[in-house]
Amino acid sequence: MRKELEKRLERAMAYQTALTLFEWDNETLAPEEAGPYTARVQGILSEAYQEVMTDPQMRELLEEAEQENVPGEENTDVDRAVIREAKEELDRLACIPPREYRAYQELVADSARICAKARKENDFESFAPTLEKIVFWQKKFAGYQAKEGQKLYDVMLDTYEKGFDMAHLDPFFELLRKEIVPLLHQVMNADSVSIDDSFLSGEYDEDKQRELGEFLAKYVGFDFKKGVLATSAHPFTTNLHNHDVRITTHYKDRVDSSLFSVIHESGHAVYEMGIADELTQTLVGQGASMGMHESQSRFFENLIGRSEAFWVPLYGKLKELFPEELRGVGREMFVRAINKVQPGLIRTEADELTYSLHVLVRYELEKKLIEEDLDVRELPKLWGDLYEKYLGIRPANDAEGVLQDIHWAQGSFGYFPSYALGSAFGAQMYAYMRTQMDVDGLLETGKLEVIREYLREHVHRFGKMKTSAEIIRDMTGEDFNPHYYVNYLKDKYQKLYRLNLE
Amino acid sequence: MRKELEKRLERAMAYQTALTLFEWDNETLAPEEAGPYTARVQGILSEAYQEVMTDPQMRELLEEAEQENVPGEENTDVDRAVIREAKEELDRLACIPPREYRAYQELVADSARICAKARKENDFESFAPTLEKIVFWQKKFAGYQAKEGQKLYDVMLDTYEKGFDMAHLDPFFELLRKEIVPLLHQVMNADSVSIDDSFLSGEYDEDKQRELGEFLAKYVGFDFKKGVLATSAHPFTTNLHNHDVRITTHYKDRVDSSLFSVIHESGHAVYEMGIADELTQTLVGQGASMGMHESQSRFFENLIGRSEAFWVPLYGKLKELFPEELRGVGREMFVRAINKVQPGLIRTEADELTYSLHVLVRYELEKKLIEEDLDVRELPKLWGDLYEKYLGIRPANDAEGVLQDIHWAQGSFGYFPSYALGSAFGAQMYAYMRTQMDVDGLLETGKLEVIREYLREHVHRFGKMKTSAEIIRDMTGEDFNPHYYVNYLKDKYQKLYRLNLE
Repeated sequence: MRKELEKRLERAMAYQTALTLFEWDNETLAPEEAGPYTARVQGILSEAYQEVMTDPQMRELLEEAEQENVPGEENTDVDRAVIREAKEELDRLACIPPREYRAYQELVADSARICAKARKENDFESFAPTLEKIVFWQKKFAGYQAKEGQKLYDVMLDTYEKGFDMAHLDPFFELLRKEIVPLLHQVMNADSVSIDDSFLSGEYDEDKQRELGEFLAKYVGFDFKKGVLATSAHPFTTNLHNHDVRITTHYKDRVDSSLFSVIHESGHAVYEMGIADELTQTLVGQGASMGMHESQSRFFENLIGRSEAFWVPLYGKLKELFPEELRGVGREMFVRAINKVQPGLIRTEADELTYSLHVLVRYELEKKLIEEDLDVRELPKLWGDLYEKYLGIRPANDAEGVLQDIHWAQGSFGYFPSYALGSAFGAQMYAYMRTQMDVDGLLETGKLEVIREYLREHVHRFGKMKTSAEIIRDMTGEDFNPHYYVNYLKDKYQKLYRLNLE
Repeated sequence: MRKELEKRLERAMAYQTALTLFEWDNETLAPEEAGPYTARVQGILSEAYQEVMTDPQMRELLEEAEQENVPGEENTDVDRAVIREAKEELDRLACIPPREYRAYQELVADSARICAKARKENDFESFAPTLEKIVFWQKKFAGYQAKEGQKLYDVMLDTYEKGFDMAHLDPFFELLRKEIVPLLHQVMNADSVSIDDSFLSGEYDEDKQRELGEFLAKYVGFDFKKGVLATSAHPFTTNLHNHDVRITTHYKDRVDSSLFSVIHESGHAVYEMGIADELTQTLVGQGASMGMHESQSRFFENLIGRSEAFWVPLYGKLKELFPEELRGVGREMFVRAINKVQPGLIRTEADELTYSLHVLVRYELEKKLIEEDLDVRELPKLWGDLYEKYLGIRPANDAEGVLQDIHWAQGSFGYFPSYALGSAFGAQMYAYMRTQMDVDGLLETGKLEVIREYLREHVHRFGKMKTSAEIIRDMTGEDFNPHYYVNYLKDKYQKLYRLNLE
């Protein structure tokens, strides 16, 4: 690759890394009143990033680099992938008139705050005009970016998960709806089984929760020489590069909340820490997609973390930390409790079975908003209708309904499906891995590193060198197949709730 | 000011702010192995800063802006000051050939580590070749920057303290030498007085030290809505802007170490928090100079913080936190202990009386290195000789001698005098303030905010709009006069050690 191109891409990377550090700092440490001043700095860095990526010379340099007709400047595979990503990013950014982009940026700079305020005051109306504008701009930008005949929502979906457009997602969600809704119904009517999870709530000491969190993070492979665990309002993972990956958690009265947050975020972190050194700090040095990322975090959190086998070597540690709180609670009882199904209104607190139904609601609403020009003011009612239809419950107010997520306020339309896709990617990997190794046996004997190394080898190290579809095909020998996910859920909950096998 | 110029200066500011955040993060949180990867990002951001400041168009824009001949683009006073600072920075950066600057940057990127290793292994020889090269480049760069006839060390001094060149500093340090050395001699021979400070060392609980630190920071005016207190190996202050100022401390077995570190760093922080909103995030939105900064930190730490009056409303709090450790220790005994004179080898641990003598040693050695081509290999012996001459003690090895500071390893020649100047600036302000208000009475009644507000009004809010010399003249009505400092020390230690007044 030519030095000049390399230099410009490095600079873009440096701006992004600085922006990541500011975001981390804002969420974990920055003082209360720093906001507007620091936002200025972030705005300027964003603009600098935008400028270096969309500079007319950048396109020339990329096209020249693709030719590979200068001796000594041949591209490696990584170069080729970087050039491809850079061109896509350039196309995405360059087609939007700067003035419109700035207007949009100004709008979303404050929208999360407006949404949070509306949530606090349970007043959707005060957020509706902002949301309406965000939808307007998002559609406008998607229109600029759309290839001929491409639908607007498909443009948005493509940002988060290449190759998973509505033509793929409609049947995927239809399958989930068709299979999970009746399964949930069966579970809720399984009167012969009652699961006690009351002991998960209580006065769990924060210091001990922290000790447990650090222990579990290390246990699943989080390397503290390359990472940091801190506290924030909502758990998240971020990374500066593969040698600096940071996760957060929160400490609540429900011990399983921080416990599974830490395992979930460690799953994201183990992915980023496992990306090859030759890729980090380039445009392909991140996880393949949002869905692939969720596949790893949810793999560790659910497929492994909520299994009986996982807790065989660990439950003693938990009892040691909380002898009072877990008095009389055996391992089996504990594992049943952390798998209890309970349809609720809040996505981030959902159990493994109902989780995808929360995502399904959002997918259907996003399609209506983007493709059918749904008036945002109709969202609250539709939201309630869909929750009632799929989960059998209806929010009493908008705070626990349409206002609960931050995504739309941030302009992230098309992001939600990744959560459900990730669960399904993970289930397919899990099913395949069980044919290759004794997963339960490894977990029971505390040999989690064998599982993690397998994932590193087949998923993590590639970064964005492969798409999620390619990763799954190369690893499991078949294309993405959501039936693995459905079968996993059926199998698990039929056993747990002693349902009649149909 | 023209928009284009404003935009470029804003961008330079954003790069600097990002670099500051990276430095903070490296010192307080970043994981062990992140170093080399993050250093790449920092290198790229430094280069971007350099580029925006030295762009040929920048000089044109600055010169154009100085003309003020475009209607509607008149300069405010702040604009004028910013333009002046920008031109100085541009001159400083632009005269150094980029290739040489890069060679130097590569050298110092690793020099602190080499110096730390040499310190650990008590092996000056292993650091000498690096130090020799740093001196070589520093002199070369000063040569590029020198105005006609200007001496090289004066160029370096000017970077940290405008207007205080050798012609000013020679008599200043001569005065200190002449007055403090014999005063120290008298103190050490004052056999009738023995001060017990043994109780300051002990197993002081870290959590309680932290509680005390937060309490004291708030007490002297550190606003936690605009700041953060964290832990690092060596205490320091940094700021992103006037609404985000951060200090660190360390917790040692000697309680006065963290206690006075926090007050010292809070002094720096109160300065930065007090800079006017219209200046922050511009080139004049920082403290006036290194010396003026030290004047504020040392004002709070020593002139106020070690006074009897300061502890009147506070000593009860201290006793409450450490009832065991301070059993039988009254306030008077405590205040005498925190003022005990004890010539030592380490500058950062020096008492108020001997502190300037440590600085004097470094000033004399820097002059020899820069102006007299002293071979760096002669430093250890000369260091020992000067310590013996001024402080009556000689380091047993280089670790507690010439290798103790980080400054030379970082290429900061000309910085040390600021520490002594700052003490003297502060003493002059203190003497003047005592003619304007009842300083002791305010301290005794816990009304520190009156003192702090006075400093904000006369020092802090101006940022770099005035030089340190102007600040002192405008505030006290006379030019800088180091006799206030000498008189303060004489008065204080004659009383404490019951010396005969000469």
